[in-house]
Amino acid sequence: MDRKNRAVILFSGGLDSTTILYYALQQNYEIFPISYSYEQRHLVELKVAASHCQKLKLTNHRLINIDRSLFQGSALTNNIDVPKNGTRLNEENNIPVTYVPVRNLILLSLAGAYAESNNIDNIFIGVNAVDYSGYPDCRPEFIDSFQKTLNLASKVGQNGQEIKIHTPLISLTKKEIIEMGYKLKVPYELTWSCYDPIYEKSGDIIPCQKCDSCLLREAGFSQTGKKDPLKKINPGILNV
Amino acid sequence: MDRKNRAVILFSGGLDSTTILYYALQQNYEIFPISYSYEQRHLVELKVAASHCQKLKLTNHRLINIDRSLFQGSALTNNIDVPKNGTRLNEENNIPVTYVPVRNLILLSLAGAYAESNNIDNIFIGVNAVDYSGYPDCRPEFIDSFQKTLNLASKVGQNGQEIKIHTPLISLTKKEIIEMGYKLKVPYELTWSCYDPIYEKSGDIIPCQKCDSCLLREAGFSQTGKKDPLKKINPGILNV
Repeated sequence: MDRKNRAVILFSGGLDSTTILYYALQQNYEIFPISYSYEQRHLVELKVAASHCQKLKLTNHRLINIDRSLFQGSALTNNIDVPKNGTRLNEENNIPVTYVPVRNLILLSLAGAYAESNNIDNIFIGVNAVDYSGYPDCRPEFIDSFQKTLNLASKVGQNGQEIKIHTPLISLTKKEIIEMGYKLKVPYELTWSCYDPIYEKSGDIIPCQKCDSCLLREAGFSQTGKKDPLKKINPGILNV
Repeated sequence: MDRKNRAVILFSGGLDSTTILYYALQQNYEIFPISYSYEQRHLVELKVAASHCQKLKLTNHRLINIDRSLFQGSALTNNIDVPKNGTRLNEENNIPVTYVPVRNLILLSLAGAYAESNNIDNIFIGVNAVDYSGYPDCRPEFIDSFQKTLNLASKVGQNGQEIKIHTPLISLTKKEIIEMGYKLKVPYELTWSCYDPIYEKSGDIIPCQKCDSCLLREAGFSQTGKKDPLKKINPGILNV
């Protein structure tokens, strides 16, 4: 297949990235899903991502490790409480303590190397700058600047071509994302958003329903008039 | 010490990055050296880097692993012959086959997370765009674009401050870099440039003297009228 029809998908197993995976499949891209482990608090998302790829027979799903020690001061990677019920800002400014230092810059750079290495001209990322946590590396100005930088660094960029960063969700509300996903038949019962999973003795993992990510998700479903079909995840039953 | 006086140094143990390490020390920065392992063909450079840090008592030297499989099609990370005696271009364009896909973008992004995590406002990288191999991610336009992108992604960039990328060597010839290094008393006998090390039974590792990096180094020393003091490296003797 032509390189213009191949796409790397940054795929965490969350609501947004699962929606873009299904979106890119519908657009007939040849899909190269990539997931990242950085010992994040919500590692269960990677089991969810693997399960989708298994069901969709995306056998080229890649898991890349990133040294967690690079990410300090974040509630997602350090021993810092995940804020609950909307008390989400840190003391210094209005960026939440769940912000992971320049994470999307790293995830996109690694995806850029993977794309350049495998003759892939497209990268999809499910960033959103409407119903989101206020992370600076989710905004359109960051994405635009990254795309320019990637193509200045890359070999393909020197040949008058480019690797394009696709952000189909960036200006949608959470409600609009979910409505788009339902049209694409995204199985939302198998998507993980919660930053602070609760581990039950049974092996079930359930969302806390109180962190910023759970609240944004709940508000989105509520506005669509639908119930969130996710109740729990059990990695043992997923069998990945 | 103030964050404005702290600096991450991308330190490979090569001629250029060792020169900037000594340069940043002379400028009285508090130094945070970072080295990267991606199973590069010339892994010996990391032993050299560790040895400098040991001698200089830079106990916070960090080694970060990057998944080598992201880098395909390069003579430095794959089973592809390193070109010798100047036949260094690949077939597609004028970028050498030793080019590693968007490597500096990844190395700088990881350094950016480390800087943001540890309240460090400066990053030094020994890129050079004069006597160099023609890699796109060594050019000033890439560095400028990266700095802008990093600060759009970062928390510190939202506070009216910035992380600055320093490239003191970018417009110098190799001769000028070496002359600068001699003034800084850089021990060039302990710097590694060769892409294709030769491993001797004795444990000595010697430069091939034929790859592009060896040729650029040799020409630089020759133009200064000095002899390259590097003969060999023996990791056993380095004791790191």
